[in-house]
Amino acid sequence: MTDSKDRILLAHGSGGTMMHSLIKEVIAPTLNMSQLGDAALVGLPSLKGLRLAFTTDSYVVSPLFFPGGNIGDLAVNGTVNDLSMVGAEPVCLSVGIIIEEGLPLETLREVLSSMQRAAQRAKVKIITGDTKVVDRGKCDQLFINTAGVGFVYEDTDLGPHRIKPGDKVLVSGMIGCHGIAVMAERNGLTFDPPVISDSAPLNEITGLILKEKGAVKMMRDPTRGGVATTLKEIALESRLNMEIEETALPVPGGVKGACELLGLDPLYVANEGILIAILSPDRAESILSLIKGLRIGKYAAIIGEVVQPTEGRDSMVIMKTPMGGRRIIDMLAGEQLTRIC
Amino acid sequence: MTDSKDRILLAHGSGGTMMHSLIKEVIAPTLNMSQLGDAALVGLPSLKGLRLAFTTDSYVVSPLFFPGGNIGDLAVNGTVNDLSMVGAEPVCLSVGIIIEEGLPLETLREVLSSMQRAAQRAKVKIITGDTKVVDRGKCDQLFINTAGVGFVYEDTDLGPHRIKPGDKVLVSGMIGCHGIAVMAERNGLTFDPPVISDSAPLNEITGLILKEKGAVKMMRDPTRGGVATTLKEIALESRLNMEIEETALPVPGGVKGACELLGLDPLYVANEGILIAILSPDRAESILSLIKGLRIGKYAAIIGEVVQPTEGRDSMVIMKTPMGGRRIIDMLAGEQLTRIC
Repeated sequence: MTDSKDRILLAHGSGGTMMHSLIKEVIAPTLNMSQLGDAALVGLPSLKGLRLAFTTDSYVVSPLFFPGGNIGDLAVNGTVNDLSMVGAEPVCLSVGIIIEEGLPLETLREVLSSMQRAAQRAKVKIITGDTKVVDRGKCDQLFINTAGVGFVYEDTDLGPHRIKPGDKVLVSGMIGCHGIAVMAERNGLTFDPPVISDSAPLNEITGLILKEKGAVKMMRDPTRGGVATTLKEIALESRLNMEIEETALPVPGGVKGACELLGLDPLYVANEGILIAILSPDRAESILSLIKGLRIGKYAAIIGEVVQPTEGRDSMVIMKTPMGGRRIIDMLAGEQLTRIC
Repeated sequence: MTDSKDRILLAHGSGGTMMHSLIKEVIAPTLNMSQLGDAALVGLPSLKGLRLAFTTDSYVVSPLFFPGGNIGDLAVNGTVNDLSMVGAEPVCLSVGIIIEEGLPLETLREVLSSMQRAAQRAKVKIITGDTKVVDRGKCDQLFINTAGVGFVYEDTDLGPHRIKPGDKVLVSGMIGCHGIAVMAERNGLTFDPPVISDSAPLNEITGLILKEKGAVKMMRDPTRGGVATTLKEIALESRLNMEIEETALPVPGGVKGACELLGLDPLYVANEGILIAILSPDRAESILSLIKGLRIGKYAAIIGEVVQPTEGRDSMVIMKTPMGGRRIIDMLAGEQLTRIC
């Protein structure tokens, strides 16, 4: 008899601790994969100093259309963002679509048009694709995989090895919008003010701030698992604490209201158009101004800083409340919202 | 009211004329894609003469395990082969998996192990991945997308523009095995002799024969739609006729028997480990010997040649029967076998 713990659960896909264990204990060792970041980097002698960045994401969001986007632009933006987070300039994308028999051709057209518009906005080309059709009831309307290739220039050095105590933690925009927008659409809820997905390409920001040589130490986009899970990953990888000021977090009114109503924490809600960056302290303010100068970055904020952990203790994420309290923030444990990307 | 012709049908995924129209009339123009071959090629100034090859394929084969392979090695081999067909040396793969809630972890492990073994055999690395989980009933156990990156060296020139009358048509192995193996497993049929999928990486062959500079003019692997559809594609793209000797086609006994029983034509059955190559006539025999020297190529054969079409007529594929008859071979029209990859 197979125990339920020997089966895949929905929570294995939610971006939290269960997904991390599945990937670290089963998927990566079995496939002999060593890089687990947003995109993998490959140096090849024939590339003469350039590194190839390569990433993939499948999209199974339900419903296909939600306020602020649909599965198509989400798939393009997500892959552009994974490349951007490792400091790559995104160059080209592939698109693999799995269609359920009976899907209206008009739906397919609309999604593909959004993909094309998103690719134009991000200045990448969709150059290769694949189409599969499965019988009715064997997938949910439409699944899309996008893989992406980009290049990282020789003088770009990003990663947890560069992070030091005193570094600043920046978030490039409002948090929690994507997850709440999808969940609201799926359940027929409306919030006032309405919540719109933040789905957007981040290479406009990364292209700009990476020109400031050395100022950016690491970047990651807080998708599944939200800002909390991403900060915890950075803390674990750098072996340093992240101290965040709760009052500094840009949470829109609609997300706050929705989260209170539904018992969710905006820190764990998925985002699809913001990044977290760790910045050299002396240059954090100038990077913040650069980002705030872009339309996509007008709500950017420094939300905290990197601190040496207490000796003998694991690195952690600490939220400082306005009343002077401190609470420890962990990764998403089970599932909060499913199929939000 | 939406007409049934405005909806996606299973036949849109079968590799034949309906899939070709969907891709040519809807998908490619909407995504603004210009290259429709096995893999797309990108030349970039920073690559100094190398061209990047990029491809993607989603796998939805049912059942997941079949004689000769499973969805995992199929996904690796398929993408390695798409890169190989454009003359690229495959370098790295991405893996995107969509899992249905409830899949036994053991099944996932087994599939991933096969992927890793297939990658080792093909000398490529799986370097990046993504995992999604969907609710029960929203996909069929497991779908896998693989995208792949490779590089084409400066002096490799392949394509329909190089094909001339007199060129020879080669097939690198027995035809029809993969489709029949999957179909038999799905329907609980057994044939005598048994039919085993030919799923295998083709870069061992292509790496060898591309060293013979200029001898190989074009290659393509006859997957969905089979040998007939691939030959028709080459005829259309080169605007030349392909004349095939029926007796020269290597069809295994088990495939012949199964096809007679089921009313299928082996020419339209999918293959996953053979290629069709168009060869310069003076060097065809030496290329054939090279391929036959490999274990994977021992049943390779020259099956026909390229001929100038009758003036004013479209290019076509002509099958010459042993009795001196000639029949015109067209693309697969509707669906013959579904979900075979």
